[in-house]
Amino acid sequence: MSAASNMFLYWGSGSPPCWRIMIALEEKNLQGYQNKMLSFEKQEHKSDEVLAINPRGQLPSFKHGNMILNESYGVCMYLEGQFKSQGSQLIPDCREEQALVYQRMFECLTLQQKLGEVVYYTWRVPENERHDSAVKRNLEALCAELKLWEGYLKKLESGSFITGKNFTMADVMFFPQVAYAFRFGLSQEKFPRLTDYYSHVKERPSILATWPPHWKESPQGMDLLKDL
Amino acid sequence: MSAASNMFLYWGSGSPPCWRIMIALEEKNLQGYQNKMLSFEKQEHKSDEVLAINPRGQLPSFKHGNMILNESYGVCMYLEGQFKSQGSQLIPDCREEQALVYQRMFECLTLQQKLGEVVYYTWRVPENERHDSAVKRNLEALCAELKLWEGYLKKLESGSFITGKNFTMADVMFFPQVAYAFRFGLSQEKFPRLTDYYSHVKERPSILATWPPHWKESPQGMDLLKDL
Repeated sequence: MSAASNMFLYWGSGSPPCWRIMIALEEKNLQGYQNKMLSFEKQEHKSDEVLAINPRGQLPSFKHGNMILNESYGVCMYLEGQFKSQGSQLIPDCREEQALVYQRMFECLTLQQKLGEVVYYTWRVPENERHDSAVKRNLEALCAELKLWEGYLKKLESGSFITGKNFTMADVMFFPQVAYAFRFGLSQEKFPRLTDYYSHVKERPSILATWPPHWKESPQGMDLLKDL
Repeated sequence: MSAASNMFLYWGSGSPPCWRIMIALEEKNLQGYQNKMLSFEKQEHKSDEVLAINPRGQLPSFKHGNMILNESYGVCMYLEGQFKSQGSQLIPDCREEQALVYQRMFECLTLQQKLGEVVYYTWRVPENERHDSAVKRNLEALCAELKLWEGYLKKLESGSFITGKNFTMADVMFFPQVAYAFRFGLSQEKFPRLTDYYSHVKERPSILATWPPHWKESPQGMDLLKDL
């Protein structure tokens, strides 16, 4: 019986937090975990089944035996802690590399926030509270954020991962955000280094194995970010 | 020369992310680090000095030798990784305990977000974009979030830390948020377990040593949360 057989993941297709966990599971050679894809549209993340282990009614929700972990960063750190020498080492031991991985992986939360404020605006903000000035400000903040990451990649050799030669926990967090930005229309011309990063990392086995199923059916997303 | 002598922290008084790092440094016996307190009011976090190591112009900003770490979670995880056997062990090895610490420490980001949406509302949202309906919704979301934590504490013995008998990284993240909520007027009657937690953890040496200086000068905060 593999270590993964008593793991269970509730997930939603295309959700970056869910995707992170699935990438980490692949990288740690923890294939074969039980899982159930739920629909955000059908409000299945608010079902009794999820609420029983996740009082906030969110995806991902994850169990390992009788332990419950619902925070994507928490699950990924736990998997690395418990299976350190299995599969890819996602947190390097070397002091300099470790510092950079921790810095970049937590910076991804800012990217996630700024991306969310643009992409989910009409979903999060009731109609009578929406303002063009807020939409414009959110887009500008996202653009500045993405330029920062474009700049990080510019300082690395072409073909690098986000912290250098090795795929690490920083990529587990970063890649789904980048894929999300391109799905929502980010310009390849204006962000050439993000485009290169996206093109080479999306061919990695752990990414191919976990590609959001509904993105395969409809490869085109919305054009929300095309003028960024 | 102690390990801390080539560490440097830029921080702001009362900022929970800055406070976390200072608590972690105390817990890891890394006293004696260099530091400079900056004023948010005077916009010193946007000074050239900070921008040179932190392009987002935020506090905390932290250096260890020539390594730069600006994300509070990143700094704390790095300190634990590099000084695992020094001072308090903040991430337990035991599988069950480790899972719970990771779950709670990352849940604190949701508490931080919901607290921020209430406390910083007028600071973040331009006057012409403010809505009473948003203020009300943010308060309700914060109340629900705080009740969740009150519930977690109810399931533990009185006098526990947030994950049980030991002070861990989850408390490093949680305590500054709780202190912040009480400073902004959270009701002790309505949140008795949070009150107990606050009362006993605030006497811990690492907390006493790092108490926000301007909170000592003016112990009363605002009453923003008193009706929660």
